[in-house]
Amino acid sequence: MNSNEKLEIDINCDMGEAFGRYQLAEDPAIFNYITSCNIACGFHAGDPVVMERTLLLAKDADVAVGAHPSYPDLQGFGRRYMKIKSSDLKSMIKYQVAALAGMASSIGINLSHVKPHGALYNSAADSLAESHTIIEALVELGNNVPLMGLSCSAMETAAAEVGYPFIREAFADRRYTDLGRLVSRSHPDAVIEDPNAAADQVFNIIKSKRVRTLEGKTIALLAQSICVHGDHPKILDVLKAIDDMLTLQKIKKQTWAH
Amino acid sequence: MNSNEKLEIDINCDMGEAFGRYQLAEDPAIFNYITSCNIACGFHAGDPVVMERTLLLAKDADVAVGAHPSYPDLQGFGRRYMKIKSSDLKSMIKYQVAALAGMASSIGINLSHVKPHGALYNSAADSLAESHTIIEALVELGNNVPLMGLSCSAMETAAAEVGYPFIREAFADRRYTDLGRLVSRSHPDAVIEDPNAAADQVFNIIKSKRVRTLEGKTIALLAQSICVHGDHPKILDVLKAIDDMLTLQKIKKQTWAH
Amino acid sequence: MNSNEKLEIDINCDMGEAFGRYQLAEDPAIFNYITSCNIACGFHAGDPVVMERTLLLAKDADVAVGAHPSYPDLQGFGRRYMKIKSSDLKSMIKYQVAALAGMASSIGINLSHVKPHGALYNSAADSLAESHTIIEALVELGNNVPLMGLSCSAMETAAAEVGYPFIREAFADRRYTDLGRLVSRSHPDAVIEDPNAAADQVFNIIKSKRVRTLEGKTIALLAQSICVHGDHPKILDVLKAIDDMLTLQKIKKQTWAH
Amino acid sequence: MNSNEKLEIDINCDMGEAFGRYQLAEDPAIFNYITSCNIACGFHAGDPVVMERTLLLAKDADVAVGAHPSYPDLQGFGRRYMKIKSSDLKSMIKYQVAALAGMASSIGINLSHVKPHGALYNSAADSLAESHTIIEALVELGNNVPLMGLSCSAMETAAAEVGYPFIREAFADRRYTDLGRLVSRSHPDAVIEDPNAAADQVFNIIKSKRVRTLEGKTIALLAQSICVHGDHPKILDVLKAIDDMLTLQKIKKQTWAH
Repeated sequence: MNSNEKLEIDINCDMGEAFGRYQLAEDPAIFNYITSCNIACGFHAGDPVVMERTLLLAKDADVAVGAHPSYPDLQGFGRRYMKIKSSDLKSMIKYQVAALAGMASSIGINLSHVKPHGALYNSAADSLAESHTIIEALVELGNNVPLMGLSCSAMETAAAEVGYPFIREAFADRRYTDLGRLVSRSHPDAVIEDPNAAADQVFNIIKSKRVRTLEGKTIALLAQSICVHGDHPKILDVLKAIDDMLTLQKIKKQTWAH
Repeated sequence: MNSNEKLEIDINCDMGEAFGRYQLAEDPAIFNYITSCNIACGFHAGDPVVMERTLLLAKDADVAVGAHPSYPDLQGFGRRYMKIKSSDLKSMIKYQVAALAGMASSIGINLSHVKPHGALYNSAADSLAESHTIIEALVELGNNVPLMGLSCSAMETAAAEVGYPFIREAFADRRYTDLGRLVSRSHPDAVIEDPNAAADQVFNIIKSKRVRTLEGKTIALLAQSICVHGDHPKILDVLKAIDDMLTLQKIKKQTWAH
Repeated sequence: MNSNEKLEIDINCDMGEAFGRYQLAEDPAIFNYITSCNIACGFHAGDPVVMERTLLLAKDADVAVGAHPSYPDLQGFGRRYMKIKSSDLKSMIKYQVAALAGMASSIGINLSHVKPHGALYNSAADSLAESHTIIEALVELGNNVPLMGLSCSAMETAAAEVGYPFIREAFADRRYTDLGRLVSRSHPDAVIEDPNAAADQVFNIIKSKRVRTLEGKTIALLAQSICVHGDHPKILDVLKAIDDMLTLQKIKKQTWAH
Repeated sequence: MNSNEKLEIDINCDMGEAFGRYQLAEDPAIFNYITSCNIACGFHAGDPVVMERTLLLAKDADVAVGAHPSYPDLQGFGRRYMKIKSSDLKSMIKYQVAALAGMASSIGINLSHVKPHGALYNSAADSLAESHTIIEALVELGNNVPLMGLSCSAMETAAAEVGYPFIREAFADRRYTDLGRLVSRSHPDAVIEDPNAAADQVFNIIKSKRVRTLEGKTIALLAQSICVHGDHPKILDVLKAIDDMLTLQKIKKQTWAH
């Protein structure tokens, strides 16, 4: 690393994943620590009322807003793989992103990015075809709103192939495999529970552009945005630990879109 | 009527009311006869795939596109009254209109109007409060997209109260009460089955700004757009009869938005 | 009251109102204090996975199981009035009750009662027609499973008119109007927050068959089952206070169906 | 074949696949030609109103009734593969079958069988694990209601492994591969359009227990029930052609469950 390089990082979190009477543990306080959020669009979570409320929270906190489209599966929270025809999936993504973009625009917010959710995210990370479908939806919607996705995944490759803007995302609270994929949640060590360990991982990703895998190897990992999971059992502690580390290291926290 | 007045009228029809595998009898040929359509937005009908397909048909036929939002009730086709909190209803309308507007924009179409569907339409026709909720949703979305609704209803009054653009709609194939409301579908004579009788009613509405009620009275009725129901058993014959009448009477058929 | 009368009461609570990833605050500990539960059937809450899990909890706790059918409105948690055709509503109730009954039967549980949920409960409490629709659904399903509903409401009258078994329900934690209806949740004093005050109300209902209204009047109120709301902010304290009162007063807590 | 063998066959068809206002082309006349039907349970089609109406039609026509459970995917008509946790899928099947069984019982009908729908059918045909999940759901529901599924598939194997009753199904109007699977609908020759050719295939399956594959090979195929698709463009002609063949060949048409 060039010691004169000015370091900065975006911290993002999935928000607005309530539905009707159902509230997730999601603390509005999270907005005080993040620079970007990804708002559910009604297909895995987030009815219109929740979306509007979350947009207002994001605006108050001056946090950049991304759309968080999903497979159509409320019962499964968008976490179940669904085999959907490419042209149908494209229409579904356009619908969700357009709905959130229009609601955001109505309170003066422009979408800063689009980040696929859950099973769609994981499926696209390994599928060039599905990644291209997502990008085609965004191209058709216009405005060149960047795609945010797993660093070094098929999403990044697909975006590069067509020259679409892409934001490389890495994870603060999840372990990586040697191949640069997230360790599956079914593994007991998939999640980094300790806030300081999460902050350390973020530091390594930013400073050395490397991450230590679960198997103990060190691999390259570029990231413009760090995702922290809103349902982490110690979410506010994780966010504070990251904040303290960033301050100490003189790394600026700000949305990639500044 | 001033004999030199240049007469013109918009003919609209609800379209895109299919869902998944389910297709309604809706003949794509209808697009050849209408100047505006109202496209379902996913809450009573019309999933994203259907919406995209319908938008393309409208574009090919050079027909103006309106959004057709509804209560959230796919099982009831939006025809069941639902008591929904005003602020929730506002968010639902914003969501639906934004979704369709964004998808329309992606193929170069600007929304020409918004027309509430089914039970929401009927409820708003008699409720100033609900009409104002709908209009507030449109105001917040911006762009001043006109509201289309029942001529002389609470929707028209509410729009006038806040100076919001409003398109007066009348019906070709439905009988009116002395109060200017539609005769309920439960009445055996609610629908005008005969295509020529429907064309006659349209003629009277345009030329004399009057309509003959079921009870036999003649009442005033202003209209900028005429709705024909896509599920009328003789829909194409009704559209042809209206077309012939318009040609004979030298009334120009064109979208109000020209 | 005859001093030799053996007193007993059923304590019921709505359970199984989670959905997919969404869990309500519902403490499984509640099962230790109640004698009956009402399990959501998928229309306002409670997908098949939640239903099965809740049935197993009820079985382990030896708590009687009732079905808790609703209007079809997941987004509104069944709390929004919907105008539904009588024959359609009957089919919906049959579907929900049959689904829960069959799942219950698969683990050796027979349904002990059916209690309508939310807006359906409130609407039926004031509508003989809707109450008769609900009862017809139960008659058609067979097995004579009792209807549980608001004491002295249209549900009770309708059941009496056709001789259908009915369980009178009263509320521990809600204030009553002089007409024997629940004070609307929009009123600041609708809910009895204090656990001891709730226990007192239960005592009065059981011992003197009377309740003191919000306005200060004392009205007659018969009850075979007392409902406690699972989402009361101090739910376990309310249940404990009732338990202590019942023990002190030598009132036996047991399901009406023993 | 023993020439004294008394031949008989069940003819089944998927029914009740409407939803709300949406009706499929499904001709009620189909009931006059079939001996069993498979009724949708609300997850891919068939709301409670449609289910009740279809049950009454089946009763009037004296046609055996099976449940037709699906993945939860109304928008995709249950034709999209969904990766669902085994225990969740089991609960979903129990819910659907219980709902239909209870509604059927309310009009005096006992379920004769259960046949998975669409993507669930195809997935289970190749997955022993998924087939066992389905069978476990049926075992837990009790009553030993037979599973109907593709002859010689994983469903048949799984049923044999646990001794669960199984009905072998073959198809009148679909071509087979050399492996005894259905030729995918994406192949131009997947469907047998000609009614007489369909009747011939049925004849061969019944008489010689063989079918000619698309590739021209002759393979063994045992069947107790023949499925005809209700959405075949010439459905009534196919049913008539089969009827004529059965009469000519003195093969008795009756439900396997007689």
